[in-house]
This record gives sequence, structure tokens and C-alpha cells, in this order.
Amino acid sequence: MTLETLSENKCFGGIQGIYQHPSRETGTPMRFALYRPPQALEPGARVPVLWWLSGLTCTEENFTIKAGAQRYAAEHGLMLVAPDTSPRGLDLPEEHAAYDFGSGAGFYVDATVQPWARHYRMYSYVTGELPALVAAHFPMDPARQGVSGHSMGGHGALVIALRNPDRYRSVSAFAPIVTPSRVPWGQKAFTGYLGEERALWAAYDATALVGGSEWRGPILIDQGDADTFLGTQLTPEVFADAARTAGVPITLRMQPGYDHSYFFVATFIGEHIAHHAAALAG
Amino acid sequence: MTLETLSENKCFGGIQGIYQHPSRETGTPMRFALYRPPQALEPGARVPVLWWLSGLTCTEENFTIKAGAQRYAAEHGLMLVAPDTSPRGLDLPEEHAAYDFGSGAGFYVDATVQPWARHYRMYSYVTGELPALVAAHFPMDPARQGVSGHSMGGHGALVIALRNPDRYRSVSAFAPIVTPSRVPWGQKAFTGYLGEERALWAAYDATALVGGSEWRGPILIDQGDADTFLGTQLTPEVFADAARTAGVPITLRMQPGYDHSYFFVATFIGEHIAHHAAALAG
Repeated sequence: MTLETLSENKCFGGIQGIYQHPSRETGTPMRFALYRPPQALEPGARVPVLWWLSGLTCTEENFTIKAGAQRYAAEHGLMLVAPDTSPRGLDLPEEHAAYDFGSGAGFYVDATVQPWARHYRMYSYVTGELPALVAAHFPMDPARQGVSGHSMGGHGALVIALRNPDRYRSVSAFAPIVTPSRVPWGQKAFTGYLGEERALWAAYDATALVGGSEWRGPILIDQGDADTFLGTQLTPEVFADAARTAGVPITLRMQPGYDHSYFFVATFIGEHIAHHAAALAG
Repeated sequence: MTLETLSENKCFGGIQGIYQHPSRETGTPMRFALYRPPQALEPGARVPVLWWLSGLTCTEENFTIKAGAQRYAAEHGLMLVAPDTSPRGLDLPEEHAAYDFGSGAGFYVDATVQPWARHYRMYSYVTGELPALVAAHFPMDPARQGVSGHSMGGHGALVIALRNPDRYRSVSAFAPIVTPSRVPWGQKAFTGYLGEERALWAAYDATALVGGSEWRGPILIDQGDADTFLGTQLTPEVFADAARTAGVPITLRMQPGYDHSYFFVATFIGEHIAHHAAALAG
């Protein structure tokens, strides 16, 4: 598994890198950002990892430069990995026509509809290929993985944790899309990637999944109440209700005055990292 | 003095805004970023302000999204203001031909050579027009101002503090250009903006200024020792020696492994803000 280093910068005593590799799942080169905290630089170290899944239009770079997460990762000794949000470098029909479908909008699903099915396999990429690659090249402890994300990436984080309770030990989300089957962003994406048969969408719908999942860890969600997508695309109370019904401990915090931007994420990422670090310690 | 709000986002309990106004000094619209900490939102409050001067190629946005400074500004109750680095929207001859002269590279001087002299008046803009505008529109305490910056902006911060010891009470810099008269970036800029007569350059050369300045506050400088510009463009020891000779207290920290990026700035901005807050308290 070859890996190309595009950049490395020292940051809070650790190393923030951007890397690229040929992906088997997407059939394209894929980039990801990875932060090694100071604790990971010690000989023989293995540190827990927090996967960060970004939202619509993002690359691996947005979280890396905007969230200020490295400070907290260094404090807690967590590795951070932020993959890109879709394959790049292709030119499929209408792939670049809209911000909410195609490039920058992989929705963390394995597409079943052509031409997307060949390349848009972000679920398998994020849960399978990339963790194996990272484990082979960096000092991550595979037994201590958490997952978080923003908006589309919050959707991805919740779905991935609920479907893989044995693999991930902590989960949180910022302004996640929790009922993709019932909101415009999700309906457009799932129709395009998965087809019209709505029963197949449930595998990627956190609210549909939570009742049947064996996940029992605490879920932390922050949502700004000045987020312009709240109510139309974002329905966190619906997921919180479903989680409570399922007996899953959930903390949903409505943050007054906060919007959908990375200024919101930056404000609360420290508390999310502490949430993950507590679950991943030892 | 009209002011247009381009964006405002809640961040760490305060408000991060981007604003635009017609500038008398530059004859163009100018943008700046301004963060009001939570303390500034209380009725009747007046808070100290830290001016941040950015480096080559930057706009008001780089520091605002990359440095993670709002967290510390909120902790200490400091307003942050980050102006753009040059006039925009002009098309002077060769203005956009190079990254180190013209647009994005105002060097915080008042140009005397045409055609730059009409518009490139960033020294007067940053020290006069903009503070008056900010004081008129935001709850800043004019008696408590500090200045900092990165690279070209570190040069600007040191020059501004040394020339105005009555107006600024604290100063610091990241990887500043301290001997612009003697390094390629500065020589190119000063020749273009100020002309060939080198005696006139001294008014914008921190190392030339420090001996004759009445500045006596502590100066904090961080410099990464893996910065590729160190030695050729950046000569912090030369300034530190001149400061010591002049009896000005200076702390120059060579930071092992750090480069010239905002990952370096982000790592140490908290300590710089604490340095300013200590001087600006009360």
C-alpha cells in the first residue's frame, strides 16, 4: 500500500500531514489529512484515533485548517484522520454540477447505481480501506477508534458507529443529517447513489438504524439553533427521540446563536475530543 | 464612516465578523476581520484590542480561519482585528505579477513612488484610519491596544509599535522580517514603494528603529527553526541583538521543527495572546 506525503507541518508538538494514495475502493487517488499528536511520536507508541468525516463541499483540508482540533488532540494524545468527502479527478455525468451530489458529496455510502457504483464507495473506503492503510503506516491503536463529523459527515459518523459497534468505541456529531431518507439532501443523494427503492436507504439512515443497533455508548451531538439548515435538512430531535426509545444514551445540545460554519465546530471541538478521549482512554 | 457587514458568525461565545468600508487612505474598499469576545457584548463594555497584521499573499481571512485565536481572545476578553494586506480591486502596472509586491504585499508602508503612492498607504491605514473606524463602530478601548503579526506582518507590528510607543502597549511577532532593508523581500518592496534612497527605508526597518525608539515594553518573538526563509529573509537574532543593545527587553524563542505556516502560528498564538492580555489588562 503506497502512500505519498504531500505535506507535513509541525503543530502543537505533533505532525499535521496531508497524504495521498491510490484507492482500491474508489479507483482514484485519495487524499487524507492525519495529525499525529506528540504522544504518537514516541518509539513504540500506539495511540487512539478519531476519524473526522467532513460535510458537503469539503476536502481533507477544511477541518484540518479551520477547526483548531490539533491543540486538543495533542492534549489528549489522539490521532486525527480526516478523509476527503468523495473521489476526485473523475468526470462522470453531472458529477460536478451541484454542491450536494457527486464530487464533494459522497455521503459515506457504497453506491449501487451506475456510473457511481464503480467509484463512489466512501463507506467501504472510510471503514475498511483507509483504516487498514493508516494502521499500516502510522502508530494507531486499532482497538481504540472513535468517529465524528459535521453535517453530511455527522451522518456518516453516526451511521458508521451504529453499524459497527464492535469497531468504534466513541461517536459524536456536529449538526448531523440524521434522517437522510426524509430530507432533501439525503433523498437526492440516496436516489442518485442507491436508487429509488427506499428500503435500501435504511442502511445509511441513523434514525432508522439506531433501534436495531447494538451500539450502547454515549452519543454527543451539538447543533446550532441559528443554523439555517435546521428543520429542513437537520432534524436532531427526531434522532434523539429514536435513540432514547432504543435505550441509547444521547446528549443533544442546542447551542444558542451558533450557525452551520466551522466557527461553530471550532467552538465545541474541544469538548467533543474530550468526549472521545474519555471513551478511548486506556 | 460607513461600514458594511459581510458576515458574522458566533464563535467561542463572541462574534467573528468580516466587514468592508471605503478607505480614504487607499481609495479602495477595504476589508477586515474583527472578533468581539463575549466580554465585548456586554452593555457599556470597552475591551482591549489586538491588531493582527498578516503576511505575504494573505487577506483578512487567513488568520481568522487558520490561527484558532478566537478561543484565547474569548478567554482573555481581547478584541482581534485583522486587516487585509493591501488595497484590492486595482490594476496598477505589475500589481498582480508577483506574490511579494503589489496586491497582498503592502508591507505596511506609505508608498512615496507613483503609481503606488496614491493607494498603497497601509501604514496610515492600519495605524490611523482603521483604528478610528473600529473605535467608532465597536466597543474597543483605545487606551489598550497591542499589535502582532506574521512574517511581513511581524515586520509591520514591530515597526508600528516602535514608532508609536504611546499608542500601543504590547507587541509580539511570529517569524518577522526584521531587517527589510537588508533582505530580498524588503529590498524589493522598499525600492518599489519608497524608491532607491535607502535612508528613507529606515522608518520602516525594525532593526534600524529600535535604538532610537522610546519603546520599553517586552517584545515576544517566536521563530521556527525549520522555517525555509530563516537566514535569507528572516534574521531575528539581528533584531534581538539591536534590541538588547538598546535596552529593550526581548524574548526570542527559536521553536524546534516549526516552519513558516499557520500551523506554527496556531501552536503559539495562545501564548502571544496571553502576553498581550497581561500588558493590556486593567
